[in-house]
Amino acid sequence: MSQQYQCRIYVTLRPSVLDPAGTAVQSGLKQLGYEGVEQVRIGKYIELTMTATDESHARQQLDEMCDRLLANPVIENYRFEITTVTSNQLLMG
Amino acid sequence: MSQQYQCRIYVTLRPSVLDPAGTAVQSGLKQLGYEGVEQVRIGKYIELTMTATDESHARQQLDEMCDRLLANPVIENYRFEITTVTSNQLLMG
Repeated sequence: MSQQYQCRIYVTLRPSVLDPAGTAVQSGLKQLGYEGVEQVRIGKYIELTMTATDESHARQQLDEMCDRLLANPVIENYRFEITTVTSNQLLMG
Repeated sequence: MSQQYQCRIYVTLRPSVLDPAGTAVQSGLKQLGYEGVEQVRIGKYIELTMTATDESHARQQLDEMCDRLLANPVIENYRFEITTVTSNQLLMG
């Protein structure tokens, strides 16, 4: 029987890669008066619902998806968390 | 004395707002053969380092920053986590 999983994927730029968007946001925050902000890095946060036969299969598929489409392995790192969706959660939407 | 904080901010579209980028990614994953993917929503993940006098001050500032610049409250929700940066972590980069 297949099981439904809720996946949270975090894609971040590798530390060696410049982040001009982050720098722009940092400068915007400074202009708004937030002087304490020292560094800003902007990444992607992806919520994904999928069905798979078991958790190890789901993790393997997610790894593949990240490498092939969701992240650019040359300049980005990714990590993800998986939780099982119970029928209760489905009812709550 | 001021303390340094590492903040992780998650900005997501409100559930009632359409996410065309997420739909495009979902369709791309289907074309790559990942039939089990049922929903994809794409948000932002922001890593921010800041100094503040204490944690409640840091949280208050972050709330303001999210409302004013980092998120669009009309169509987006946000949540954040704060951890204290110790000198050890600073040394490790």
